[in-house]
Amino acid sequence: MASEFERISSLNAIFGAPPAAVSLGIGDDAAIIDLGALEPHAGHLVWTIDACVEGVHFRREWLGWEDVGWRSLMAAASDLAAMAATPIGVLCAVALPDDVGDEALEAIARGQAAAAASLSTAIVGGNLSRGSELSISTTLLGACGRAVPRTGAQPGDLLILAGPVGLAAAGVRLLQQAVHHDEPDASAAVQAWRRPIARIADGVRLGAIATAQIDISDGLAQDASHIASASRVRIDLDADAIVGSELRAVCDRFGLDALQLALSGGEDYAVLATAASVPEGAMVIGRCSAGEGVWVGGATRVDQLGHDHFRGKP
Amino acid sequence: MASEFERISSLNAIFGAPPAAVSLGIGDDAAIIDLGALEPHAGHLVWTIDACVEGVHFRREWLGWEDVGWRSLMAAASDLAAMAATPIGVLCAVALPDDVGDEALEAIARGQAAAAASLSTAIVGGNLSRGSELSISTTLLGACGRAVPRTGAQPGDLLILAGPVGLAAAGVRLLQQAVHHDEPDASAAVQAWRRPIARIADGVRLGAIATAQIDISDGLAQDASHIASASRVRIDLDADAIVGSELRAVCDRFGLDALQLALSGGEDYAVLATAASVPEGAMVIGRCSAGEGVWVGGATRVDQLGHDHFRGKP
Repeated sequence: MASEFERISSLNAIFGAPPAAVSLGIGDDAAIIDLGALEPHAGHLVWTIDACVEGVHFRREWLGWEDVGWRSLMAAASDLAAMAATPIGVLCAVALPDDVGDEALEAIARGQAAAAASLSTAIVGGNLSRGSELSISTTLLGACGRAVPRTGAQPGDLLILAGPVGLAAAGVRLLQQAVHHDEPDASAAVQAWRRPIARIADGVRLGAIATAQIDISDGLAQDASHIASASRVRIDLDADAIVGSELRAVCDRFGLDALQLALSGGEDYAVLATAASVPEGAMVIGRCSAGEGVWVGGATRVDQLGHDHFRGKP
Repeated sequence: MASEFERISSLNAIFGAPPAAVSLGIGDDAAIIDLGALEPHAGHLVWTIDACVEGVHFRREWLGWEDVGWRSLMAAASDLAAMAATPIGVLCAVALPDDVGDEALEAIARGQAAAAASLSTAIVGGNLSRGSELSISTTLLGACGRAVPRTGAQPGDLLILAGPVGLAAAGVRLLQQAVHHDEPDASAAVQAWRRPIARIADGVRLGAIATAQIDISDGLAQDASHIASASRVRIDLDADAIVGSELRAVCDRFGLDALQLALSGGEDYAVLATAASVPEGAMVIGRCSAGEGVWVGGATRVDQLGHDHFRGKP
């Protein structure tokens, strides 16, 4: 097995050159970001950390090592989309058990690097240590003119969704059952879970008009409830609008409950925004009014649906 | 056991109000930093992540939960001292095994909060998940006028050390032996390991004149070798100067090798700088010349001494 320094050297080659605003990356005590190199309209930095732990967020038999790296990066990057920010750079801390060797680590790094590159950013540093389980903590720094919090939704605002909900959760169900996931009809759902995409461009586009914004990591019902409670509004969801055609097809084929998955399934990383007006092409899935809670069909309250990492296993 | 959201609420109370430059902290998707609120002389951001994993970086029986929180934060903050930066804020991702309950988590948070407050900063967000082992990943963002890398040391520069080296490693030896660590003569060493201090003020003060700078996390010999190789110089250390009086006393009392600990003992988080001139009161421990490697007594090369988390257990 390679030493810590040999491993860092090989990861450095995989991660490549740092983005323009980062003047020093891997190989010193910390990354350096030149404030003068940030885009002129950037008034704020947005900063987040997210963890991906084997046995909690994924099982090794459900995906490849590159998928592990890709997912860990996208899950963290999605918080920037929620705030309408674009990434400046990424740091990650990886704890490696003895049975994850150099080849697996490099595959994880390739997945991270590919995900970062697809968001026009790069990994600029990190930390490697041993651990009894594989865990990847990823922190991203982003820039934006105006960060969009959860607190600004107003009665009368419309609810806009960018990206599918429930599809990744359908993929997990198929992987858990371990019988259908190789069938062609399952691939959209399984791929949605293995290779999620942080919707940075949607976040920035919607953020320009949004009164509140969030990403869907714990499930639409639960994440909408964060906007409802932070903004002190009631949110009504349109059951027909939130079930996308891909979700409908896979659920029909394999006997899953599409509406339940659309409401409670996490890890799709769609972006949910509230706004007084709707940009062309946007998908409206509900509206805000005076009151509290998240409701479907006008009479069913659904705030409590969703995922709590302390309560459920993947 | 409390839910994820109940836990975050109680942690929020422990972590308190965010620093001035942070306009939104715990409770949204990400922390927001107002670039206009940074100090006028700040031209660069410095950004680091560090992990603290049970069984790798500490054993539960060696320290209290507040110490675990304190150490994890200081170890990460020390990288800012290395770069001559002052902290803007802190994020942490904590993975909790089932046998670490709410009281333990809150004690860890109190230790983190106390460490952050002592550095005039605060924890402004993070992530909680389950895990089979306790791990804390900590990321800090700092600001500085000029970040000091490892690459600028010149032949003729003097080596300046701020803080003790070897004392924390002596503390670990006493804790490992589990026989002496409660004796009064052992307390300076045990405390150096349980409650290290990131030397932010020293880092900034030395950084104003330093040609290269680093913090001592893996041992003086190994961290000095990073400067030597990055700057392409030879470094000669003065054996008498690097063994401090506290280290000498505890080693004499308990039969430990003071010079070996001073050279290879990590986790004291002293700051090592190279500079052409020496500020008043600074401790000179060696000098740079043309050549390569780190040497003691002119004839013994010591680069290879030190700690590799993949090779050794704590």
